[in-house]
Amino acid sequence: MDKSLRIVGLDVGGTSMKAGVVDGSGRPLSNVTLPTEPELGQEHGLATMCAAIRKAIAAAKLQPADIAAIGVATPGTMDLRTGYILDPPNLKPWHNVPVRDHIRAQFALPTVFQNDANAAAFGEYWAGAGVGVRSLVLFTLGTGIGGGIILDDRVLEGEHSHGGEIGHMKIAFDSPRECGCGKFGCLEAYASAQAVVKRTYEALAADAGVSKLHTWPRTDGELSARDIFEAAAKGDALAERIFDETAFFLALGASNLMHVIDPEIIVFGGGMIAAGELLLQRIRRHVPRVAFPVPAALTRISFAKLGNDAGFIGAAGCAKFLLKKGNLGLS
Amino acid sequence: MDKSLRIVGLDVGGTSMKAGVVDGSGRPLSNVTLPTEPELGQEHGLATMCAAIRKAIAAAKLQPADIAAIGVATPGTMDLRTGYILDPPNLKPWHNVPVRDHIRAQFALPTVFQNDANAAAFGEYWAGAGVGVRSLVLFTLGTGIGGGIILDDRVLEGEHSHGGEIGHMKIAFDSPRECGCGKFGCLEAYASAQAVVKRTYEALAADAGVSKLHTWPRTDGELSARDIFEAAAKGDALAERIFDETAFFLALGASNLMHVIDPEIIVFGGGMIAAGELLLQRIRRHVPRVAFPVPAALTRISFAKLGNDAGFIGAAGCAKFLLKKGNLGLS
Repeated sequence: MDKSLRIVGLDVGGTSMKAGVVDGSGRPLSNVTLPTEPELGQEHGLATMCAAIRKAIAAAKLQPADIAAIGVATPGTMDLRTGYILDPPNLKPWHNVPVRDHIRAQFALPTVFQNDANAAAFGEYWAGAGVGVRSLVLFTLGTGIGGGIILDDRVLEGEHSHGGEIGHMKIAFDSPRECGCGKFGCLEAYASAQAVVKRTYEALAADAGVSKLHTWPRTDGELSARDIFEAAAKGDALAERIFDETAFFLALGASNLMHVIDPEIIVFGGGMIAAGELLLQRIRRHVPRVAFPVPAALTRISFAKLGNDAGFIGAAGCAKFLLKKGNLGLS
Repeated sequence: MDKSLRIVGLDVGGTSMKAGVVDGSGRPLSNVTLPTEPELGQEHGLATMCAAIRKAIAAAKLQPADIAAIGVATPGTMDLRTGYILDPPNLKPWHNVPVRDHIRAQFALPTVFQNDANAAAFGEYWAGAGVGVRSLVLFTLGTGIGGGIILDDRVLEGEHSHGGEIGHMKIAFDSPRECGCGKFGCLEAYASAQAVVKRTYEALAADAGVSKLHTWPRTDGELSARDIFEAAAKGDALAERIFDETAFFLALGASNLMHVIDPEIIVFGGGMIAAGELLLQRIRRHVPRVAFPVPAALTRISFAKLGNDAGFIGAAGCAKFLLKKGNLGLS
């Protein structure tokens, strides 16, 4: 029965949204992308979400009547209980958007609403790097650091929709770096792609022209985390130091989660994992410095497997698991 | 039916163990204490645990046949799945002690085994500061910092029995303080009673004789966290600074949990809360500096209510909730 289930997952981002029909085992049967165009307003946004869902159903050669449920993931801020997006920095000028109720009413289908990083974590748990585990923590390493925590088939949403905001754990209080969130000392301020670039420019300013990065070809005029990690791989000492420190910060974040959640697996996803296996090796090497011996030895650490599809697959997965538990009425 | 339930809770510490019969609403019907004497060996320890359970039943004027289940809490290290204490630093020289199976066999009753800090968290959740909440994080502030996390009637045990080891979250990596655990930068190394004393002696060494603490009467020849907090309450500037920094470190720890677990309530327990309401006020004042606005505004922060009884009440509570779910066979 499970495999014959058909669920639509939708993952809304600031630039584009992805939707697909997913079967009961987490396999996508279609995969469509539409521009989000948040600047055109939230009515337009809701209409585009519905269009993406219809397109995903059609692309899988199905009818709406074939679909058992819908899962929708968006960036925050949000209220997961009521299914509202509140004031999303990446979807300006949207404000108080009743996403879940709107989509549920349009399709008359059980509809689940989830944070995009939580949905991606659920995707990896259900059909990606975490298949078979009971508990998983995902760090998504992009411009910022997002995350999600899955325990026994459920997203740890938290009491105020802030569960799994693990990029904003503080790892420093003494001369802490400023984070994009306005606070200081967050993991994101040390180990996101943006932080890697910032730390590199600071190091270059103090480096007296030795590093190859001074003359590295710049895409769009600026160094990127990718450039820096490439220079590290080619033996540039300054880039290598930035790379290794980044791995240390990520090991620190992973270790903190080992001492709070103690999951079976910690997964790193997002654009920065393009750095490849060496990043994972370095993170693993730093973990025993900071974590207790048992979780340091036994917690699996790996890269995400679903890439940009994790969000819509996971959104569908959240709907599936709530359907299974009978917690997904139409009311 | 619930209220008429009778469960024995046992909380084993390095110096003494407490046991009591607890009713289905979390009210203790008896409360007995025996010395643990770990140095006499683990066979002696297991026999004392059984004696404490029998005494608790007799003190409540009940028979073993009146008891529905037993909950036992001990300090770690431990394996919660198998019910073994492994190599507990506070119960030397015990090693690989099959606590759960031994007690289950002696009493032929469903028996639950739990970490002592997790059990205390469950006690506060069930019958203490957290009555009525769905999720709770407890920090126990003693010589070290322990903790426990409760989500929807369940202890977050973690995959390797390390869930809720929140005293060992790292909050610093740059010149980090050494922790009793052998690692560096743990919350415990900044905000435990021992850390408060250490930070104070360091500050006094650099203070040129101004602080009253130089001549403060010392119990057992050493300042205690209590002395330092009393001096702060009496206006000593150095003590006040240590006190306020301690509140900041605790706010940082609380904030990190708001961004990972996002619980309904964060509870502080243990000897250090004798500092009183002022400590709580200071923690609350620092939280908005480090936490996101929504959890900073909405997460309740309070002191524990059950004192030293939290462990045995919580151990009994863990047994009760597993009984309710039918997860507590004799096999």
